[in-house]
Amino acid sequence: MDWDTLMDEMSSGSIPALSRLITHVEDRSPGWREVMRRLYPRVRHVPTVGITGYPGSGKSTLTGQLARELAGRGKSVGIIAIDPSSHLTGGAFLGDRIRMNALSGLEGVYIRSMGSRGAVGGIHPAARDVIKILDAFGKDTILVETVGVGQDEIDVTRAAQVVVLVCAPGQGDAIQYLKAGVMEMADIYVANKIDLPEAEKMLNNLRGMLMPGESGRHPHPPIVETQAEKGIGIAELADAIAKRVATGPSREAWRRRSAEEDVASLMRERLAELAAWPGTGAADVDGALEDLLAGRTDPYALADDILARSLVRMLEKHRS
Amino acid sequence: MDWDTLMDEMSSGSIPALSRLITHVEDRSPGWREVMRRLYPRVRHVPTVGITGYPGSGKSTLTGQLARELAGRGKSVGIIAIDPSSHLTGGAFLGDRIRMNALSGLEGVYIRSMGSRGAVGGIHPAARDVIKILDAFGKDTILVETVGVGQDEIDVTRAAQVVVLVCAPGQGDAIQYLKAGVMEMADIYVANKIDLPEAEKMLNNLRGMLMPGESGRHPHPPIVETQAEKGIGIAELADAIAKRVATGPSREAWRRRSAEEDVASLMRERLAELAAWPGTGAADVDGALEDLLAGRTDPYALADDILARSLVRMLEKHRS
Repeated sequence: MDWDTLMDEMSSGSIPALSRLITHVEDRSPGWREVMRRLYPRVRHVPTVGITGYPGSGKSTLTGQLARELAGRGKSVGIIAIDPSSHLTGGAFLGDRIRMNALSGLEGVYIRSMGSRGAVGGIHPAARDVIKILDAFGKDTILVETVGVGQDEIDVTRAAQVVVLVCAPGQGDAIQYLKAGVMEMADIYVANKIDLPEAEKMLNNLRGMLMPGESGRHPHPPIVETQAEKGIGIAELADAIAKRVATGPSREAWRRRSAEEDVASLMRERLAELAAWPGTGAADVDGALEDLLAGRTDPYALADDILARSLVRMLEKHRS
Repeated sequence: MDWDTLMDEMSSGSIPALSRLITHVEDRSPGWREVMRRLYPRVRHVPTVGITGYPGSGKSTLTGQLARELAGRGKSVGIIAIDPSSHLTGGAFLGDRIRMNALSGLEGVYIRSMGSRGAVGGIHPAARDVIKILDAFGKDTILVETVGVGQDEIDVTRAAQVVVLVCAPGQGDAIQYLKAGVMEMADIYVANKIDLPEAEKMLNNLRGMLMPGESGRHPHPPIVETQAEKGIGIAELADAIAKRVATGPSREAWRRRSAEEDVASLMRERLAELAAWPGTGAADVDGALEDLLAGRTDPYALADDILARSLVRMLEKHRS
């Protein structure tokens, strides 16, 4: 992997180079950490918007329309679509591909599909790196769209500065979101498909749940009414996001929280590598096991010893 | 916690001391690793039998009858009942308690209920330690009974020398077990409730799946027919277990596999502690974050640095 050439090409604005760089980082190809370290000083920490909601809420359409709106305002937009099917099918749904092609035609819009981690749940740790790559590439705003409710949603609220929760009528009460712990994490609520008969009920549910008295939050988080397919309410959503970026937690607070999460996420990934014992990492495992079986040590001391040695070896390898 | 007194009392055969020691180790009270290290040389690695199967298969009744049979043969038996409800209710089911009381009256039988890890799945890492404690206490055989199919079952097959899978008629095809990856892990199959009308169908299913041609295993693993409530087939099951211990993988092979798993399990537990960043472990996190926010380092280098420092600190604390 010639990372230098790829970095140079990406710096001069090559979209294919960008895509290849993302693929290598997503695949955790050897050297990915070093490349991210070199790229990191160029990251400007632009606004990242997480867009979440149940399947069928019209989230994908809304994300597309929002990208169009932002592009119309002269912004370049990066979209990361977290696709729970990708790890199984090796790619996005056909419908998603069509949407992606349509959006890719827009000036300044780059869209990328990434698999979630399947049974384990949660977005791929590389999603945080891809956000940084798009940022360093010059994108002004990054949209991260996730499907399903659960670990994906928790992860995206950690990765995004502004979280948008998309609701639609007839998906059961919005109370489901509350139960899933997602409701309270959103900064902006979208009531989509506002032309449907049950829209009023949905709005009342939403308003009821977001009453300051209930949630203890001041001010009441905004509810934006949209009909994404017809483009209704999209400008208002873009405004609400801009307002939230301007008036929400300071950029410094967001950067601090985000930096903490970066480090925690990278640590978790390292720890998962270490946990693969007896894997390839520990060369002297056989000797250690003999010591244990012969009663010269015990598993409690040995586990700590192997952990310490493996970590030292891993970090030495990383630095060399 | 006066571990010394507890260890002494346990050594002289005190059941209350045994129970308290187990509780402290299960709770991971400070010093538990040190106590396990001191206890470890007394562990004789006696046979451990995992008993698993869907709820409703009659597994608990069978475990009780097996303990009774072994006690009748002059063996002292330790039972660990993995109870998925314990983490919610703080204890075992009422029915389980009644059973436990009845069994505790048997000479030489000690029964202990332990919670599984709930949503995370899998048996508590301390279960491996409790097996060792019961072993060191002088139990001749340890039975580990698990409920449900999934991570619990995978874990128990790693912790047990002999795995018994209990099936009953009318629980759907045994094919469910195959799908769950449990079927192929068992050493002995129990066809329980053999007096029920659908028993013949269950037996045919089982035999079909265990055909050497299908599974590639020689010899065909035994199928023991039981009616646990009436005590039918229990002696045969005890014989099959004894035979498996005598003729299965050598004691050395089992000890090696078990030692590997001990170390891997302890490492996973340590790693989970490390993953709690920014937790209490890392005292200089604030300074590190300032460096990161000021651009003097990047998250990729920082994650590794914190990991190395945290591990060193954790191990130093452990040794002191």
